[in-house]
Formats: sequence, C-alpha cells, structure tokens
Amino acid sequence: MNKAVFFDIDDTLLNTSEFADIARRSAIEAMCDNGLPVEYDEAYDMLKSIIKDKGSNYGGHFNLLTKELLGQEDPFLIALGMTTYHNVKFSLLRPFPRTMAILIYLKSKGYRLGAITNGKNIKQWEKLVRLNIHHFFDIVITSEEVGVEKPDPEIYLEALRRMRCEADKSIMIGNKLDVDCVGAVNAGMSAILVNSTLSDEEKERVNKEDINIIVLDNISDVDTIL
Amino acid sequence: MNKAVFFDIDDTLLNTSEFADIARRSAIEAMCDNGLPVEYDEAYDMLKSIIKDKGSNYGGHFNLLTKELLGQEDPFLIALGMTTYHNVKFSLLRPFPRTMAILIYLKSKGYRLGAITNGKNIKQWEKLVRLNIHHFFDIVITSEEVGVEKPDPEIYLEALRRMRCEADKSIMIGNKLDVDCVGAVNAGMSAILVNSTLSDEEKERVNKEDINIIVLDNISDVDTIL
Repeated sequence: MNKAVFFDIDDTLLNTSEFADIARRSAIEAMCDNGLPVEYDEAYDMLKSIIKDKGSNYGGHFNLLTKELLGQEDPFLIALGMTTYHNVKFSLLRPFPRTMAILIYLKSKGYRLGAITNGKNIKQWEKLVRLNIHHFFDIVITSEEVGVEKPDPEIYLEALRRMRCEADKSIMIGNKLDVDCVGAVNAGMSAILVNSTLSDEEKERVNKEDINIIVLDNISDVDTIL
Repeated sequence: MNKAVFFDIDDTLLNTSEFADIARRSAIEAMCDNGLPVEYDEAYDMLKSIIKDKGSNYGGHFNLLTKELLGQEDPFLIALGMTTYHNVKFSLLRPFPRTMAILIYLKSKGYRLGAITNGKNIKQWEKLVRLNIHHFFDIVITSEEVGVEKPDPEIYLEALRRMRCEADKSIMIGNKLDVDCVGAVNAGMSAILVNSTLSDEEKERVNKEDINIIVLDNISDVDTIL
C-alpha cells in the first residue's frame, strides 16, 4: 500500500493561467478607467512584458507599470490594480471540474498523494488552502523549499524520501512534458501528462524514446488508468 | 466492501446555524441603518419570531418584517436584507475544520458515503456544491425528495435501498440525537452523535436504552473509531 501519486499544481489541478489572465485584464481595465493614460491593449501588453521580464512571482508588476507610464509610481492605481487582480482571481479560483472526483477516487484506491510544484511556498499552499484540497496531500513540496526547480531530479527524489516510497511505485501527474514528466522519469518514476496539447515534435519524442509517459487529454481521465 | 457512512448536513458537516445567525444579524443591521424604524435588537427578535413561525425555508422573511413594521413591503429594504444575508452567509460558508479530512479518511478506508438531510433539494445540494464536497457522496437524499423527514425510518430505508447496502453495515452520523441517531437506529443502522451537547436526561437515555449510538464531541473524532 505504498503507492503514491504526485501532482503538479498550476494548470494541472486548477486552471491557474486562465484565471490569472482574466484577473490581469480586469486589473488593467480598472486602471485605465481610472486614469492610466494609455489604451487598454497597450497597457495589457506592457504588463505582460513586465511579468515576462520580472517573473510571475515578482511583487511589483503594477508599480513598474505606473512608473513606466507616469514617470513615478501611483499608489492609488497600484492599489486598484492589485485589489482588482486579487478579487477577480480568487473569485474565479476553482479546481478543474473533476479534480475533486479524481483526488477522492485515488484516495479510495489507497494511493498516498503529494504535490510537487515550482513556485513560492506560501503562494502554492494558498492555492491548496483556498480550494480546500490541502487535506488530500500527505506532502507538498515547492521549489523554493528544496532549492531546485522541476525538472531537476533532486526535487523528485526529495519528494520520494519525504513520502517514504519507492520511485518505481510512484507516478507524477502534470501538464508540462519536460518539467513534470521527463523530470519525474529521470528520477525513476512513471508519469502521466494531462491538460496539454503536444506539438508533432513532442508527440514523436514521447513515442520514440522508450520512456514511461502516458498522455491523457485531461486530468478527468486519470481514473481510467489508475 | 459495502460499508456505508451517511451524514446529516447542517451543523454536522458545516456550521449552518452559526453562519445563518451572523448573516441575519448583518442583514438586520443593514436594514436598520437604512431606515427600518426600530431598534436593532427589536428587529432581530421580530425576524427570529417570523422564522420560527414560518419555518427557515419560507421565502419571504424580510417581506413580512417590513410589512409588520411599515404597514407595507419595502422593496429596497427587502432587497438590502436578502443581499446582505446571502453575501455574508456565503462568504462565511465553510465545512468544519476537519470535515474534509474525515471525508477523505473514510474514502481511503473504503467506505461509501451518503448524505441524508431534512430540507429542500436545491438548498441542500447548493451547500454541498458551494463547499465543493458533493463528489464525496454516492447519494444525497432530502426529505423534500422522499416526502418524509428524519427521524421517519422510511427516509433511512430509502437511503439504504439507493446505496444498495445493508442496515447493519451502515452508520449514520449527525448532530441531533432523536432526528439523526434514534431515527437511524430504528431503521436498523448504528449511529454516531457529534457536535452536540446532551442534557442529563438525554445522556441517561443514551446510556440506559441499549441502543447502538456512540457519542463523540466532534466530527473531527470520527477517525478515532471508524
């Protein structure tokens, strides 16, 4: 009974990217409606480029946006952007429709569950807690905590150690072929790719290389094979 | 593996009464602040007596309150009361802290789960859906659907039929001694009473009558005995 399933969080258990994008657009709209002196689309593109440049975990995206456009930070517009972003994001935040059913199914089959995620400790835990699914996971491992990011095998090996289970009895489920699946396979685990559209080149790699990766359209389908 | 656990919903899985009471007080406060011509405490007592009189599922509590106090319904105050009530209630709505952990634990032990609740179909389903715990339950049975309320054994027998399981392999968990526990025992099931403060007279009954009821302080403790 030491079978374990590890999950990536973002875009695997919940649709993080879509929620974040809708929230960013709402924030930009609010800022433009309240005096940010630029067209909506232009402001949105600038914000996207700031996020790309600084990374999504940088704390001052809206600060930089107002500074670039106004020559100095505008506390009202920054607060408006942040508040709108968080309100919209958290009001939308939901697991994928069958995420709960899959987690419950795996528990009923005796699997132990873990989460392995690239990102900041508290931000990643916050998602699990807001969705109220944290109780499903025996362990939660973030790259911030371990000091290396997926696909570095060390983060997978650390997860296996903490879960006290063998690599060959463990499965990683994620939406990124190299980061989630190839990384896990390199640590001796098997892997399931979900919620992902593979390019032809990627499809060829999955088929050619004799690696232990199963491709499913959707996290909803996990109960068809486990 | 046909063991089944059935749960009552209100005040067993979540703190319905407390949330509803806080929401009612907020609604009354908003109405009094906006022109309901009576002291806060008096309005609250009137509302409580209307709810007691008409039942909690009656749709026009605030209508009656304004009618009694103003001689006619006040659409603004009614809308303000309803909106405040629902906003506050749904922003507070949460399972008890360890409800999720207990549901996950029971699933991992192979139990099938059901809910048996007195109330309206859609209102009771709405609570499960808002809490995102509906996937845990193989069946959900309401008194509206069956046509009789707990503790009538018929509602328990109907639940057993739908779950296709035997009474003597089934456990009812609820917070009301007679409604949830004695009712279930009369249908041949065993029962666990949780989240309840028994009077001395009730304690004596539970001990005296040789009935199959276990008393736990809290739903959190269910995993100590199942």
